[in-house]
Amino acid sequence: MFDLIIIGGGPSGLAAAMYGGRVGIKTLLISELPGGNMNFASWIENYPGFESIQGSELAEKFRAHAVKYNAEFKDEKATKVERKGQNFIVAGEAGYEAKSIIFATGTTFRKLGVPGEKEFDGKGVHYCALCDGPLYTDKVIAVVGGSNSAVKEAILLAEYGKKVYVISRSEQIKCENCNYEKASSNPKIEFIYKTNVVGIKGDKLVKSIMLDAAYKGKKELAVDAVFIEIGRIPASELAKKLGVAVNEKGEIITDKESKTNLPGVFAAGDVTNSSAKQVITGAAEGVKAAYSAYAYLKSK
Amino acid sequence: MFDLIIIGGGPSGLAAAMYGGRVGIKTLLISELPGGNMNFASWIENYPGFESIQGSELAEKFRAHAVKYNAEFKDEKATKVERKGQNFIVAGEAGYEAKSIIFATGTTFRKLGVPGEKEFDGKGVHYCALCDGPLYTDKVIAVVGGSNSAVKEAILLAEYGKKVYVISRSEQIKCENCNYEKASSNPKIEFIYKTNVVGIKGDKLVKSIMLDAAYKGKKELAVDAVFIEIGRIPASELAKKLGVAVNEKGEIITDKESKTNLPGVFAAGDVTNSSAKQVITGAAEGVKAAYSAYAYLKSK
Repeated sequence: MFDLIIIGGGPSGLAAAMYGGRVGIKTLLISELPGGNMNFASWIENYPGFESIQGSELAEKFRAHAVKYNAEFKDEKATKVERKGQNFIVAGEAGYEAKSIIFATGTTFRKLGVPGEKEFDGKGVHYCALCDGPLYTDKVIAVVGGSNSAVKEAILLAEYGKKVYVISRSEQIKCENCNYEKASSNPKIEFIYKTNVVGIKGDKLVKSIMLDAAYKGKKELAVDAVFIEIGRIPASELAKKLGVAVNEKGEIITDKESKTNLPGVFAAGDVTNSSAKQVITGAAEGVKAAYSAYAYLKSK
Repeated sequence: MFDLIIIGGGPSGLAAAMYGGRVGIKTLLISELPGGNMNFASWIENYPGFESIQGSELAEKFRAHAVKYNAEFKDEKATKVERKGQNFIVAGEAGYEAKSIIFATGTTFRKLGVPGEKEFDGKGVHYCALCDGPLYTDKVIAVVGGSNSAVKEAILLAEYGKKVYVISRSEQIKCENCNYEKASSNPKIEFIYKTNVVGIKGDKLVKSIMLDAAYKGKKELAVDAVFIEIGRIPASELAKKLGVAVNEKGEIITDKESKTNLPGVFAAGDVTNSSAKQVITGAAEGVKAAYSAYAYLKSK
């Protein structure tokens, strides 16, 4: 029996685990992806105190910090969360029981939803340049998306590939203070605007993508890989099934103290309706959630 | 003319300055105490990513991070904030104008309000063991207060002094998960309960304190120094004069995005009504305030 189970191993979950341990409540963190989305960040340069640190390294520091205060870890997927009287049962490889819960489940990559995407997943279709970019040294790569994130992915992929197309459905890249200049001055990177990717083709591996507008006279573009960067979806399914209120985007609605609509249930980080989705804000929300859980336990 | 002026140099202000610089708005931080209350923390062990770091060192890292992104600094006291049309004028040694403002003014030490306190300020009356404790090597020291903070001050002061009294007006020390055990097992530290300090006496320096209940038969206790640790007061005076709404404790009322009741005016950290007053939460609020200021400027 735990006082607190945290679902999710990103910065919010890890900070919550550190804090839960520190205030002396028996804390378990369950996560299929230790480090969470920090694993997908090459360099983090906006977490105060570290001018520049690799995402994986910061994740390791967060985890070590939580381990120091005796938080326990299960590196496995939480598949269900149910009530048991006033408590909660989290199903992973086993069932774990706790008096309070923090959802720090983050986001998943948004899918494009076109033919071939699922078939070639991991075989030319990817969602993380940092993770899978090195597979495409001297290859031709497409990035699908028109945001700052898409541009950043393209810049990173140009380190590996010989050519990187950025395919945006709108007529310009939407980014404030972004890396557009850096990308547009890179001779390997080419922008294709007002164009949707409508299919992905290949045999064992991706060979081309289908466009809805002709590029250089053709609607088929030969590529070795396609990286899809069209946003993320809050991973709030488990929470919703438990009865946690979400907004129209599917984000868990939290107050300033990281409380949800349900007593004993808290949430933090990218899965919530907080506006600034950064490591620093997620970590702080994790701390607040752990503190709120602690106060909840004391009040019982 | 600045886009953003941040008043206060603690973790919230410094994180806001880093973020303001990073999103490309012309940012000035004005503070009479660079590093803010981090200067008064010997070791910070709950800022995720640093298992243990000196407060002054973390402050320096935060500041360097903000400098990297071209935030400007004035190490001087902000004495007034006034409206000028849609803008704001912050008076320091000169007047500085900005389109938006963040109050990250933190807290000041609560005064005891007894005769001699003001007279001997800095001459035996102190509010920060870390700052002034080393002055009292092998001396007799009193700590006034009954909280975890008071106990922590006493433990630190016992490193220097030969005797440390902790004088609490209640009949026990109020602290959850605190350092009471560590203090009570220290032979240098003695607790005096149900007693108020009602006066401070000396000539050039403090020589004794007056108690309202006899201790070992006497209401006068010979000490070389008295450290007052009875809480902090939100430094919201400048904000209140501008019309910013505060709660009954004098804390600036902010929403989840660090907005106050006034357009263009934001607040972060210990001066606000946020519950968890930690470096991590203050820093995140600073980031959110800077982001909200940026969004405000873009919307104009």
